[in-house]
Amino acid sequence: MDCIAGYTTYIDLIQDLVAGKKIISTGMMKEVDRVEMAIQEALSGRSCALISGGDPGIYAMAGLVFEICKKKNIPVFRPGLPHQGGGSEKTSSGLNLEIVPGIPALAAGAALAGAPLTHDFAAISLSDLLTKWETIEKRLTCAAMADFVMVIYNPKSRKRTWQLERAQELILAHRNRATPVAVVTGAMRTNQQIVFTRLDQLHLADIGMQTILFVGSSASVRYMDFFFTPRGYTDKYGGDHRPSEPRMDKQNQEA
Amino acid sequence: MDCIAGYTTYIDLIQDLVAGKKIISTGMMKEVDRVEMAIQEALSGRSCALISGGDPGIYAMAGLVFEICKKKNIPVFRPGLPHQGGGSEKTSSGLNLEIVPGIPALAAGAALAGAPLTHDFAAISLSDLLTKWETIEKRLTCAAMADFVMVIYNPKSRKRTWQLERAQELILAHRNRATPVAVVTGAMRTNQQIVFTRLDQLHLADIGMQTILFVGSSASVRYMDFFFTPRGYTDKYGGDHRPSEPRMDKQNQEA
Repeated sequence: MDCIAGYTTYIDLIQDLVAGKKIISTGMMKEVDRVEMAIQEALSGRSCALISGGDPGIYAMAGLVFEICKKKNIPVFRPGLPHQGGGSEKTSSGLNLEIVPGIPALAAGAALAGAPLTHDFAAISLSDLLTKWETIEKRLTCAAMADFVMVIYNPKSRKRTWQLERAQELILAHRNRATPVAVVTGAMRTNQQIVFTRLDQLHLADIGMQTILFVGSSASVRYMDFFFTPRGYTDKYGGDHRPSEPRMDKQNQEA
Repeated sequence: MDCIAGYTTYIDLIQDLVAGKKIISTGMMKEVDRVEMAIQEALSGRSCALISGGDPGIYAMAGLVFEICKKKNIPVFRPGLPHQGGGSEKTSSGLNLEIVPGIPALAAGAALAGAPLTHDFAAISLSDLLTKWETIEKRLTCAAMADFVMVIYNPKSRKRTWQLERAQELILAHRNRATPVAVVTGAMRTNQQIVFTRLDQLHLADIGMQTILFVGSSASVRYMDFFFTPRGYTDKYGGDHRPSEPRMDKQNQEA
């Protein structure tokens, strides 16, 4: 890779991997500049990795690459795959784009909290910088009504302080006050912190820019220092069900 | 790791990594047996890895471990972390449980489809084996009403054949007929296939046991051989916005 583009904080996390490469590093709120520069690099014939924390496709930069390419009429190709409905030939003026999936914060956070996401869930960002607050309210209400587990991204920032309490109020209209909530900050980083609370206490939690929240469904339960959402296996198959004979289909694979 | 437990298909995928280890491998529908055996191994003092495809916490086995431990009153501890509200001491009779997150099918599939999940989304399984169909219908309707992008797991199996068309009908009640849909099968495996269609054509798609679906929100758009959900950056900041001076905060990190 000739060039690495990313939010300054993420570039700092991988310093030892990027020595000697051209770096395009910009701060928060400079996403459009950063992605435009990365696209420009790639169009100039140099390879460029645009990095995100977690997974690049979940509340992250992959979408913005497409937004910008579409706006500027830059053709985008999937390397190594023939296009649908066309041949495998491609024009020389276009962007070869590969999206490399990662472990999203919702999966890393869930693993730390227990297993909140083993059943249907909704991911909702409380940031109303790019989304109308009324849309966010509707999503919170509908997700609460339909008993989805919820993963809440961007619950609070220095400037966005009232949204979380409003979200709590909307969810409480449809969900038990004692619903388990996990507050996960800095998942899998050195500042990692996991705190459990309940829905009616959520406004008291310590929440920062790297926090995501897991709000249980009506089925979710706390157990020991964890919180999980049963899928219903033990109800269906019987909790005391044991195989009459432990079946080890394959033991000791050594040849 | 002394022992590896998993669904036969997943064990087969990692044959070269598990040679010489004890293998607990069971077929589909034998999840409870498999997880009970894995827990038993770990309680006997041997280390046991219970493997899932994708991420173990998203529609996978992590939840069942907790379901069974709770039902059998087996204490569960997070290794290396003091419990919340308690000391760091732990009893000798209990399960030390670490959940290792992975790349979930929804992230792998999204990366192949483009960037459908860069804004709020709901994950819904159409499997009514362990969930009442009326609950699934309610979730489909609420997610459609609130304009969530949807990731649909378990759209169809040999025995579950009518659910997908009913889901399509419920979503169409609230969403445009031309809404983009990506049909992703075997993401990142050798049988990988990505097909784009639209919501009103979804019933014609070729869908198997390894397929997940991405149904766009009202904002989602097709572009070239991709489908993405804009977050609204280019509307907000202006599509022709360019930095007057390309700002390279750090160039050539070589010392």
